[in-house]
Amino acid sequence: MSQSVEAHPLYRMINPRSIAFFGASNNFTSMGTIIFASFRALGFEGPVYPVHPREQEVQGFRAYRDVAQLPEVPDLAVMVLPTGIVNQTLEACGRKGIRNVVIVSGGFKEVRGEGEDRERELKEIAARYGIRVIGPNCLGVTNPHHRLNMTPFPYEGEPGFIGMASQSGSFVTQMFHYLHGLGLGFSTAVSVGNEADVDLVECIEYLGACPNTKVVALYIEGIRRGSAFVEVTRRVAARKPIVAFYVGGSEAGRRAGSSHTGALAGPDELYDGMFRQGCVIRAADLTELFDFCWVLGTLPTPEGPEVGLLTDSGGPGTAGADACSRAGLRLPEFSERTVEKLRAHVPHTGSLGNPVDLTFHKNPKDFYTEIPKAILEDPRVRSLLVYFLMPVEFIERAMMHMGVPNEEIAGKIEGITKWQGRAFADLMHTHGKPIVGYTWRGLEEPTIRTFMERGIPVFPGARRAARALAALVRYGEIRKRLLAAV
Amino acid sequence: MSQSVEAHPLYRMINPRSIAFFGASNNFTSMGTIIFASFRALGFEGPVYPVHPREQEVQGFRAYRDVAQLPEVPDLAVMVLPTGIVNQTLEACGRKGIRNVVIVSGGFKEVRGEGEDRERELKEIAARYGIRVIGPNCLGVTNPHHRLNMTPFPYEGEPGFIGMASQSGSFVTQMFHYLHGLGLGFSTAVSVGNEADVDLVECIEYLGACPNTKVVALYIEGIRRGSAFVEVTRRVAARKPIVAFYVGGSEAGRRAGSSHTGALAGPDELYDGMFRQGCVIRAADLTELFDFCWVLGTLPTPEGPEVGLLTDSGGPGTAGADACSRAGLRLPEFSERTVEKLRAHVPHTGSLGNPVDLTFHKNPKDFYTEIPKAILEDPRVRSLLVYFLMPVEFIERAMMHMGVPNEEIAGKIEGITKWQGRAFADLMHTHGKPIVGYTWRGLEEPTIRTFMERGIPVFPGARRAARALAALVRYGEIRKRLLAAV
Repeated sequence: MSQSVEAHPLYRMINPRSIAFFGASNNFTSMGTIIFASFRALGFEGPVYPVHPREQEVQGFRAYRDVAQLPEVPDLAVMVLPTGIVNQTLEACGRKGIRNVVIVSGGFKEVRGEGEDRERELKEIAARYGIRVIGPNCLGVTNPHHRLNMTPFPYEGEPGFIGMASQSGSFVTQMFHYLHGLGLGFSTAVSVGNEADVDLVECIEYLGACPNTKVVALYIEGIRRGSAFVEVTRRVAARKPIVAFYVGGSEAGRRAGSSHTGALAGPDELYDGMFRQGCVIRAADLTELFDFCWVLGTLPTPEGPEVGLLTDSGGPGTAGADACSRAGLRLPEFSERTVEKLRAHVPHTGSLGNPVDLTFHKNPKDFYTEIPKAILEDPRVRSLLVYFLMPVEFIERAMMHMGVPNEEIAGKIEGITKWQGRAFADLMHTHGKPIVGYTWRGLEEPTIRTFMERGIPVFPGARRAARALAALVRYGEIRKRLLAAV
Repeated sequence: MSQSVEAHPLYRMINPRSIAFFGASNNFTSMGTIIFASFRALGFEGPVYPVHPREQEVQGFRAYRDVAQLPEVPDLAVMVLPTGIVNQTLEACGRKGIRNVVIVSGGFKEVRGEGEDRERELKEIAARYGIRVIGPNCLGVTNPHHRLNMTPFPYEGEPGFIGMASQSGSFVTQMFHYLHGLGLGFSTAVSVGNEADVDLVECIEYLGACPNTKVVALYIEGIRRGSAFVEVTRRVAARKPIVAFYVGGSEAGRRAGSSHTGALAGPDELYDGMFRQGCVIRAADLTELFDFCWVLGTLPTPEGPEVGLLTDSGGPGTAGADACSRAGLRLPEFSERTVEKLRAHVPHTGSLGNPVDLTFHKNPKDFYTEIPKAILEDPRVRSLLVYFLMPVEFIERAMMHMGVPNEEIAGKIEGITKWQGRAFADLMHTHGKPIVGYTWRGLEEPTIRTFMERGIPVFPGARRAARALAALVRYGEIRKRLLAAV
C-alpha cells in the first residue's frame, strides 16, 4: 500500500494519455454519441481517435475507419457498441496493442443465456492479449482531475475528493449534479459493471493510492472476492475512510441487483461482518453514502461520541438530541465552568443544559461566537451540532424596521452572512472539533449556504446530521484501532 | 365524533371573530411585535385590539391602554408578555369576560421552581373564570383558512390540509417555508406548549372534526392522558390518518424535551404500543412526519404492499427495490400478460422483471404512458414507484442536436414537461392506485416539479419514497381493521 499511484495496474486506464473511442457518431439518439459529447465537454487534453466505419469526422474529431489505422497505440479504448460486435472489436484492439479497454455496452452476463457465453468469450480474448477490461455493462471511468468522463452526463463543478467504486454507472453519472449542489465532487469514480476483469477490490486499492481521494465511496450489489475485499479495505482504511452502501441484503435488492449486473449478493449480516472486519463504514442508503463522505472528507475526526448541541428553538433541539441518541452519540452534561460561561448569554427562558436552547436571543452575535466557543472549550464535548434557521427575509424585515435604508440592506445582510460562516469556520479550526449543522430551510438559503461554503456541512433534518456525525465518530474509532494494531 | 366542528369547545379559540393582542408594540426587537407583524401580514379579517400601556397605536392599529377599555368582549386574547405580568393580565381578561386565551410567554413549568408555582396560579385563575387556555410557552394557533397566524414567521403559500398538534411551536412556524416548498400547507396547526389546559388530545379531537384537515400530524415529547389519547385517535383514524413523531423515547430526547415543555416521556416501546392501539402511524423524524402527511393527504390508499417499480437506471432501480424491502413493501413478479405488454417497449438490455428497467430508451414517451399503464393494469400491483431523472439540459441538448431551432426549445420543453405530469396524473386517477416518485435531482427541476404539481409526490432518494408508500399501505390496513370493527 506504500505503492505510488503511478505504479498501480489501473493507472493508465484511469489516467490515459490517448484514447480510441468506438461507437460515437453524429447521431444524437445513440448512447455512444451522447457519451462522446460529455467526454468532449470536459476537455480531455490528449489525442482522441473516434473509430467509425463510415463517418469521416465525429463531432469535429477526425474519425478512423478501423482501429488498425490509428497513428499510435492509444493508452485506452472506450467501446459503446452494439453487443454483437464488441468481442470482434476487442480482438482488433488486442491486435493493435491496446492494453486498457472500457466496455460500456450491455448484453452480457446480466442478460443470462447467450450473454454469459459472450462474456466468457470476451474474457478469453482479453486474457489472450493481456488486455485489462473495465465492464462490460458499465460507465467506466470518470477522473475529473484528468478531464476524463466517459458517462452520459456532463461533469459538473470542480474535481473533488470522493473516490468511488460502484456497481452502478448511474450512481456515478447521475450524481454529478447532486454532489455539485453540495459543493462536492468525485476525485475518481469507476463504474465496474459486470466486473469481467477489473473488480471493486482492485478499484478500492487504486483509490487508496490515489492522492486526490480523501474518502472512498462504494456502491455494492455483491462482492465476489470477500477475503481480498477485507484485506484491501483494512489497509486503505488506516489512511482514509471507506463508506459502503450495500443493497443486496434485502430480498428485493438482491433480485434487482442480479438482473442489473449479475452480482452475487449475500445476507445483510454476512456483509455487516465483512464491513466490520474490513473497517468499512456502512451507509443505509445512497443519500447517506454521500452525507458520510462529505463529513469524512472535510471535518476533523472527533475524539469520541460526545456532542454539544446548540439551538434557538426547543422542538428542533429536542429532535436533534433524539436523533443523536438514536445514532449512537451522547449529549454529556456541560462542566460547571461551561454553564457559568453560558449563563451570561442565554436568557432565563432558555436552557443552559445540553442542548443549549437560546429561545429568543436579543444579541444574535452570541449564537455565532461566545456560545459555541464556550461549548467547544468544554473538554467533555468532542463535536458541535447546530440548528440553523434564520432566513434572510427575517433579517431584512428586522433591518427595515430598525430604519436601515433600503439600499443598504442587501449589502449589510451579505456582510452578516459572510461573517457568520467565517465565525464558525474559525471556531472549528481553533478547536479542532467538527461542527455540523441541520435545518429545514433549503440549503440554497444564503444564511445556510454561508456555512457550507466555509466547510461546515449542513443537512436537511436532524437525522441526517446526527448519523453523519456518528460516521465521523466511527471512523475515529476505526483509525485508533488500526493504528494500535500496527 | 359525529360532532360538527362548530360545536367543538376549541372552535372559537381556533376560529375567533375578534382578537385582543397583548405584547405587540412598534419596537421590532420584541417577540410580541414580530408575531403581530406576521399576524397582520396574513390579513385577519375581524376586529383586532392591541392592548398596550403606553402606545396609542400599534403597527397601524388603534391600541387600548387596558383590556377593560375594549369596545367588545373579543373571542380570543393572545399574550406575548413578560412572564411576571401574565397572570394578572389573565385575571383582567377573565373579568372582561374573555373565555379563550393563548399564552405565548414562557417562564412557567418548563423552568421548574417558581415557574411551577406561577403555572399553578395561572390554572387557578383560568378555572375561576372558565377561561380555556392554550400554552403557556407556545405559539398558539395557526389557521390559514381563517387568516389566523400568531407565530413569528409569516405564513407562506396557500392554506393546506395538514392538521397539526405540536408540543413544539418551532415545528409549526418554522415549517411554513418547508411545506410551501413541497406545495403543502397547514389546515390548522396548534402549538400546545406546557398544556396547562388544552392538550394534544383535545386538539386531535378538534382536528378530527375540522373539515379542512385531511391528515393529522403530531409532534410529541410526552403524552399525559394516555388512555384518552388512544380513545380519541382510534375514533379519528377511522376517518382520517394520524401520523406522529415521538422524540421522548431516546435518552437525550427525553431529557431535552423535559427542559423544553416539561413533558413526561416514556420508553419507545410504551409509545409504540400506544400508537398501535390508537391506530397512529409513527414517523421516525420530522422530515418523515411531513413525507407521510403528503402521501396520506393526496394519494389513493393502496389495497396492499405490492409495488411495481419503474426505472431507466439499474442502480437506482436496485436501490429502490432495496428501500421497498426494508420499508416492508413487496415487489411481486408481474403476470405473464404484463410481461408480454412490457416486451414491446423495453430494449433487450433492459429488464422485464420488477423493477422494470428500461436502461436506454429510444422512445421516451413509453416511459410515461404504455409502460406504467401495463404495470398498473397488473392486478398483483397495488402502487407504482418511479425513478425520475431526466434533467432539462439533457432534453435541450438532444433537441439542439436534432436541429430544433433555438427559439423553439424552451416552449417545446415546457410542453413535454407538462404532458409528462399530466400523463402520470391521468394514470393515477384512471387506475386508482397511488404513484410516488424518487430522484436525486433537485425538486425544483422543472421535469420533477411537473409531477408534484399534478399531485405525484416526488422524494429526494429512494428511502423516503418507499417509507412514505409503506405509511400509505399501513393506513389502508388500519382503516380496514377499524371499519371491520364497527
